Amino acid sequence: MKQVDLLYTGKAKSVYRTDDPEVYIMKFRDDITAFDGEKKDTLEGKGRYNAEVSTFIFRYLEEHGIRTHYLASIESGVIAVRNLTMIPLEVIVRNVAAGSIVRNYPFREGEPLDPPLIVIDYKSDAHHDPMLNDELIYALGLATPEELDQIKAMALAINELLSDYLDLRGITLVDFKMEFGRYNGEIVVGDEISMDSMRLWDKETGTSLDKDVYRFGKGDVMETYAGVAKRILSPPWGEPA
Amino acid sequence: MKQVDLLYTGKAKSVYRTDDPEVYIMKFRDDITAFDGEKKDTLEGKGRYNAEVSTFIFRYLEEHGIRTHYLASIESGVIAVRNLTMIPLEVIVRNVAAGSIVRNYPFREGEPLDPPLIVIDYKSDAHHDPMLNDELIYALGLATPEELDQIKAMALAINELLSDYLDLRGITLVDFKMEFGRYNGEIVVGDEISMDSMRLWDKETGTSLDKDVYRFGKGDVMETYAGVAKRILSPPWGEPA
Ligand SMILES: Nc1ncnc2c1ncn2[C@@H]1O[C@H](COP(=O)(O)OP(=O)(O)O)[C@@H](O)[C@H]1O
Ligand SMILES: Nc1ncnc2c1ncn2[C@@H]1O[C@H](COP(=O)(O)OP(=O)(O)O)[C@@H](O)[C@H]1O
Ligand SMILES: [Mg+2]
Ligand SMILES: [Mg+2]
Repeated sequence: MKQVDLLYTGKAKSVYRTDDPEVYIMKFRDDITAFDGEKKDTLEGKGRYNAEVSTFIFRYLEEHGIRTHYLASIESGVIAVRNLTMIPLEVIVRNVAAGSIVRNYPFREGEPLDPPLIVIDYKSDAHHDPMLNDELIYALGLATPEELDQIKAMALAINELLSDYLDLRGITLVDFKMEFGRYNGEIVVGDEISMDSMRLWDKETGTSLDKDVYRFGKGDVMETYAGVAKRILSPPWGEPA
Repeated sequence: MKQVDLLYTGKAKSVYRTDDPEVYIMKFRDDITAFDGEKKDTLEGKGRYNAEVSTFIFRYLEEHGIRTHYLASIESGVIAVRNLTMIPLEVIVRNVAAGSIVRNYPFREGEPLDPPLIVIDYKSDAHHDPMLNDELIYALGLATPEELDQIKAMALAINELLSDYLDLRGITLVDFKMEFGRYNGEIVVGDEISMDSMRLWDKETGTSLDKDVYRFGKGDVMETYAGVAKRILSPPWGEPA
């Protein structure tokens, strides 16, 4: 399998075709953006940490019966993935109220959401990712009712697996965003699950361990990403001394 | 039954308690607002036309088995209604794409929406009426799944009745907003259904016959409201000469 041509340059990753039409190569770049693209930076090492965490999580999900696009790691920050027909939805699962939901609705920051709350946005830079409801998803032809049911069920299953995993490492999974795609008639998790797409709080201190550190200038972003990557990739009892 | 004290002054109506705790009096005022309250005016006669149309529509719905809050007409622009525990949802049914849905999503103005599209906003001036999804409605405790199912079914039934009725009078029901409340454990249509809450287009010319005339300065608002009230309250074959 050989990288052929650049297919797509997104805000944080680049996707390449390969000589195998079923396989894409995904490069996690060091670019970071926030606030609908208004804030932009390049932070050396970011791509690598996100790729490591995302790879680890996708492998973990696969071991637990969840189909993902992950195929193989090529080199630092670069992975091979299945070529999915992406569904332009940002599927967000929230366990604790934080961020936009607190700004837009009468939830208190830090309030537990039980059962976890699913919110789905339309992935469209041109439309500024507006929120959808099920009826809009059907009217826009973005997914069928059967597909949406499956997407929601997968999102909740992934949330449970990840919440439990992170909890053992002293991290609260506050909320996170997923993207799904179609592959041979199946719904598969695509894109990334990383510090850029999860909202993570230290269980003891409540400190942000994610892109909020960048968004709101809460500290050293790369130190945070390096620290949380290490915590996620380590066994729960810590590294051997 | 006697009007007692003012309970609530809204943007377009005032609600009074009566000596019967089950009954409220609703006065349709001549105030009109648009764009989240940024545009405001008083248009003499508006209250009366909206009250007449709303009364007519609620009676029509009752005749067709839909429970509404309407009880009796008191005088011009003033009606008696059941005291409902209002559910703070703005339930919008859309038959044709127009307005906010065209600005926020890739629909073309005038595109038919089949099946009719339900969108529900959170009725909250403080939060600027943000859109909801079913999961948010449950998480915020605004309605139970059983209530929401009933609200959606009623909204679609009302849409069918009204669309057919207006169609016979040469008017397209593009979209409209309803509010619902609880009364003795039942879901009942409340508030108003009028030129302020319906988007109506003349079937032949496509001309706006509703509040859009006010919003976008498309013509004489009171002339439009008077004309459409007459069309709605007349038999489909026109007034006797
Ligand atoms: N397995 C996949 N197959 C095809 N496209 C994918 C796959 N996984 C993710 N994508 C898409 O590739 C792009 C990833 O780059 P990213 O920088 O995140 O872009 P964006 O700015 O659109 O979010 C996204 O548009 C994403 O939807
Ligand atoms: N049957 C009812 N019982 C109690 N309240 C009602 C009933 N019907 C409507 N209302 C409420 O009365 C108010 C009507 O006044 P309006 O000027 O439309 O107010 P608003 O500015 O809140 O939309 C609304 O808040 C509406 O929810
Ligand atoms: Mg992305
Ligand atoms: Mg109102």
